[in-house]
Amino acid sequence: MTMTAELEVGYNVPAAVGMDEADIQTPCLILDLDALERNVKKMGDYAKAHNMRHRSHGKMHKSVDVQNLQEELGGAIGVCCQKVSEAEVFVRGGIKDVLVSNQVRNPAKIERLANLPKLGATITVCVDDVDNVAELSAAATKAGTELNCYIEIDCGAGRCGVTTTEAVVEIAKAIDAAENLKFTGIQAYQGAMQHMDSFSDRKAKTQIAIDQVQEAIDALTEIGLKPEFVSGGGTGSYYFESNSGVFNELQCGSYAFMDADYGRILDEDGNRIDAGEWENALFILTSVMSHAKTDKAIVDAGLKAQSVDSGLPFIYGRDDVEYVKCSDEHGVVSDPNGVLEINEKLKLVPGHCDPTCNVHDFYIGVRNGKVETVWPVSARGKMY
Amino acid sequence: MTMTAELEVGYNVPAAVGMDEADIQTPCLILDLDALERNVKKMGDYAKAHNMRHRSHGKMHKSVDVQNLQEELGGAIGVCCQKVSEAEVFVRGGIKDVLVSNQVRNPAKIERLANLPKLGATITVCVDDVDNVAELSAAATKAGTELNCYIEIDCGAGRCGVTTTEAVVEIAKAIDAAENLKFTGIQAYQGAMQHMDSFSDRKAKTQIAIDQVQEAIDALTEIGLKPEFVSGGGTGSYYFESNSGVFNELQCGSYAFMDADYGRILDEDGNRIDAGEWENALFILTSVMSHAKTDKAIVDAGLKAQSVDSGLPFIYGRDDVEYVKCSDEHGVVSDPNGVLEINEKLKLVPGHCDPTCNVHDFYIGVRNGKVETVWPVSARGKMY
Repeated sequence: MTMTAELEVGYNVPAAVGMDEADIQTPCLILDLDALERNVKKMGDYAKAHNMRHRSHGKMHKSVDVQNLQEELGGAIGVCCQKVSEAEVFVRGGIKDVLVSNQVRNPAKIERLANLPKLGATITVCVDDVDNVAELSAAATKAGTELNCYIEIDCGAGRCGVTTTEAVVEIAKAIDAAENLKFTGIQAYQGAMQHMDSFSDRKAKTQIAIDQVQEAIDALTEIGLKPEFVSGGGTGSYYFESNSGVFNELQCGSYAFMDADYGRILDEDGNRIDAGEWENALFILTSVMSHAKTDKAIVDAGLKAQSVDSGLPFIYGRDDVEYVKCSDEHGVVSDPNGVLEINEKLKLVPGHCDPTCNVHDFYIGVRNGKVETVWPVSARGKMY
Repeated sequence: MTMTAELEVGYNVPAAVGMDEADIQTPCLILDLDALERNVKKMGDYAKAHNMRHRSHGKMHKSVDVQNLQEELGGAIGVCCQKVSEAEVFVRGGIKDVLVSNQVRNPAKIERLANLPKLGATITVCVDDVDNVAELSAAATKAGTELNCYIEIDCGAGRCGVTTTEAVVEIAKAIDAAENLKFTGIQAYQGAMQHMDSFSDRKAKTQIAIDQVQEAIDALTEIGLKPEFVSGGGTGSYYFESNSGVFNELQCGSYAFMDADYGRILDEDGNRIDAGEWENALFILTSVMSHAKTDKAIVDAGLKAQSVDSGLPFIYGRDDVEYVKCSDEHGVVSDPNGVLEINEKLKLVPGHCDPTCNVHDFYIGVRNGKVETVWPVSARGKMY
């Protein structure tokens, strides 16, 4: 999806630059640009103050424009993403340093990945199987390029990644010996604890991951393969990795937009992180379309406008009405006092930002009541 | 999204026509064309044998190509859909009879809807508020077109729709008196019981809806406004509406593709409906991308490739492995005997077809091991 003059407001784009916020067609995603910029700058300042590189996670927003903001305003050194087709979008969009924080095994995908450095970007990929080293090496050699490799350690997420130091050492040796590959780091993202409410529970889980990674680094250092980068950390844990003395690269994504599921986790003082640490910058704008029953309003944002895997959205800035049910095209909003009117707009904070953004083609950036930007969700649907 | 020569396999389309099934890039949606055609023909034959019009629900597949198949092979008389932008896609794609089975209240949307008949299609829209009648009439008069109106009765779904016969009569009179509007029918879809497992529970709920609609028809007939069409029925209930003597138009959608949530409801004999009544024609094709842990494989279809609002997908044709967890980009497959290999492909039956189709840009139609069609999900993301 690229922006062209043929886009019709209301048919395939919800708004045009310069439009009043009130005229935006719903449902759609809107970004509070002031809040977004404050979040981006805050994380950038934090990373800089802690001598951490920040490689912002592009799988959350899938947007070249948001990534550019993170690099320009937030000092991000590049992007991480999860799929080769996402990496292609970011590289073609001008991003110069891309980590595919995932395994690439399909031969056609490996070939595409190996050709990406020709477009002028540094490409890094994760490895969790020694067999993958030969595959990547052969493709990079054939393409005449070099691929950087991070070895992925499963430090608690229970998905990809090796679990023993022996496996890390074996793969590092194989990468080091392979043509056209360079061993540059460790990938260690503890995805399973990011959403635990309790700060101390998250801290304890992260400490296990830090100890596991430290053991691997010690073993690698002993054989002369000390990793240059140790990468990980998310919106629920970046302060632990930053103060670990082990990690030197962060991979935060959701901090920029926030969502309902992250918002309710607690900081060290027991406050929700959306009550000060990060601002809600992403909303699903929705309209009341039916109020045939006096105590409930029906809004136009249902399952086609969001993912409810992590729970329902909440209605921003309102405690008199509540989003209580979600079906394909409709949301049911409890309105006990019958205050909502037909065409009234509400701002929903989605349960989970990543898969919600992936449903939409555009972000409508608003400031001072006006549409300031219309940004394509550049890598929407890029899952190959 | 339109098909152009610039589409690159693996970047923005998962396959090309003529390709071996084995070369399809994953994750993506595939259609078993033989199964799809059998489902479509079966529903068409059923409707014909029961003197029912079938208006297939396009909000499920969002595809002009699938709709064409339903009209050509299944005798569907047109489409229903839920959004004005979807209706625009179907009309621009050549579909001649479109029902927006939903309320349209935003002024810009009403204007777009009122202009659609100019493209050569019959347009019908649902109404559940007498105030909406004047809005629609003014727009159709301004556009110089005619809009058909169905009055929506909430017969148990708890979303849009009026709940009293008095309200039906009031709105019918208003439509009948309004310029450029024509009162043509009743919309009565009982969406809340379609997924109840028990046949007799579904039957009892549908009977309540039938009685409610009969009462409204009687009152309308008394004032000379007998509705020409009474429309409703879904994959879990179409036989009740067809035998009611009250309904004469069906609106089935999921029967064509099937999904895990519908598949487990039971027919009159206590058999799952995916065990004979309807075939699974839609699958998420996914590949194993990591097997670093011996007892679990990680596949490449997560939340970005499907909606899990109605539960996790199941793995088609396999009882030795199970999809047990879904995160943004990954599925965790329990593989207790370690039988899965890297790059091995699995076919997932999604929990809920409608919002899953809405994530993808293409359907890859396969037959006899070859890619026969690449159909765009024409109205993907059309939610305005």
